Amino acid sequence: MNFDDPLVRRRLREVEVLVTSWGCPPLTKELLAGAPELRAIFHCAGTVRSFVTDEVWRRGILVTNAADENAIPVAEFTLAAIIFAGKKAPFLAHDARKHRDDWSYAAGRGELSNRGRTIGVVGFSRVGRRVTERLRGLEVDILVADPYADPAEVRAAGGRLVELPDLLRRCDVLTLHVPALPETRHLIGAAELALLRDGATVINTARGSVLDTAALESECVTGRLDAILDVTDPEPLPADSPLYDLHNVMITPHVAGSLGSETRRMSESALDELERYLSGLPPRAPVTADEISVSA
Amino acid sequence: MNFDDPLVRRRLREVEVLVTSWGCPPLTKELLAGAPELRAIFHCAGTVRSFVTDEVWRRGILVTNAADENAIPVAEFTLAAIIFAGKKAPFLAHDARKHRDDWSYAAGRGELSNRGRTIGVVGFSRVGRRVTERLRGLEVDILVADPYADPAEVRAAGGRLVELPDLLRRCDVLTLHVPALPETRHLIGAAELALLRDGATVINTARGSVLDTAALESECVTGRLDAILDVTDPEPLPADSPLYDLHNVMITPHVAGSLGSETRRMSESALDELERYLSGLPPRAPVTADEISVSA
Repeated sequence: MNFDDPLVRRRLREVEVLVTSWGCPPLTKELLAGAPELRAIFHCAGTVRSFVTDEVWRRGILVTNAADENAIPVAEFTLAAIIFAGKKAPFLAHDARKHRDDWSYAAGRGELSNRGRTIGVVGFSRVGRRVTERLRGLEVDILVADPYADPAEVRAAGGRLVELPDLLRRCDVLTLHVPALPETRHLIGAAELALLRDGATVINTARGSVLDTAALESECVTGRLDAILDVTDPEPLPADSPLYDLHNVMITPHVAGSLGSETRRMSESALDELERYLSGLPPRAPVTADEISVSA
Repeated sequence: MNFDDPLVRRRLREVEVLVTSWGCPPLTKELLAGAPELRAIFHCAGTVRSFVTDEVWRRGILVTNAADENAIPVAEFTLAAIIFAGKKAPFLAHDARKHRDDWSYAAGRGELSNRGRTIGVVGFSRVGRRVTERLRGLEVDILVADPYADPAEVRAAGGRLVELPDLLRRCDVLTLHVPALPETRHLIGAAELALLRDGATVINTARGSVLDTAALESECVTGRLDAILDVTDPEPLPADSPLYDLHNVMITPHVAGSLGSETRRMSESALDELERYLSGLPPRAPVTADEISVSA
């Protein structure tokens, strides 16, 4: 929406409710001064951090998001990545193009199995929790690291809350589910990656900045670690990044989140919130100013 | 085991129970004549078709297998393949190596989503049933085709039993879970593939022979269909097969089944059967002569 359009500005004077989505411009103090009737914002996507300003909270405007719904496809994609990591499937598939009818090369890639593996989930966020729950049927050990998580809730989801270094030392597959915040920038750097065992796979479906790209590159170039990356830092990686060429790195162009039919899940949730608002019911997924500083 | 070894032959005279695994030689009439005490065979893997002869049934020997346990990793792998197929992840990942920092190429690959997709499960076998059950949380429509399946059982697993042509016309992702039998050879050939919609993905984690390789190749070369193949016919495909080079085909070297730690699940199950036998309890997974002719 273009808030500079005079017509939009005029309508904004009467508007009580905004239904927003990706790319909504920041709701500045100046803009909100021109929207005296605005009482609620129903966001059809995940984070509202890019456009919800302090002024929104100051005015006591209700904000809801569809972060729960947006977590669903990311968790699904991550589950698939974890299963394929256990079987080294993306890397074996790449190698098959070279080895062709000689399938003996698979023998050098370790156990190629999932049962009994240790999965390290960093961040018991909406996505991290769902990934943990979805892993349950797999007969794997799930370790979770998150300074804000409640051990009982992690246990109820099927995981065990441990300190990050402990998780890193023990996991076969590491999957990241922390928001991109100043505190989480390079949360996983050279020192953290060094704790991972040989042959471990690093999965990132969160945000590129939580993983130190240069450090990961060093570990993947030597073949010590494998990686499945749906997000990178920068995004996209520069054309000359060696990560594009490595047989043990799978890069997808940021497609794990809601796309196509999956976005409808988020719009439906926002419209459901609108309906609840109109009926005087409490919102299902209100966003608070506090929450916005520690979650995606 | 080498049944030609005189020492083995001598021990066989006293043996009441055999615990077998992959590569067990055929239990011929001649061999069984030298094993008068044999009462039970506990197989630590899936099909026993390669070594259990009619003479075994004639002698009323108990046979159990670990086909249920062997179905677990195959179903897991297939679930991952289905999720990745919805996002076109393996194909986008391959293309990323070429397109590098230009990620706009993903826009031409359709919806890249899973919700609301139609998954066609051919064969409500041990694996097919598990795949159907595991797909449940994904908000997809699951169609199942299997002349032997009970509609109520399919419904209970979360699918809907339909005729094969109907399934083929409607599915976005086709996944095969039928055994390799003379009747299932090329069950999916040119005519069947032609019924699939443009952009559909064919997944084969069953046996190569159930899919007509030449017909699939024709459809994949034009880019009309995508494929994820863990099994092929022949296996491996010849070195000059164009399937190795296609950006829309992912080939893994037959790794979906039990490997590494996953094989222990099967041995444990066979030892559990042995324990039940010694305690006089009925077997959990007896194999019958009839069953062997319609299942894997």
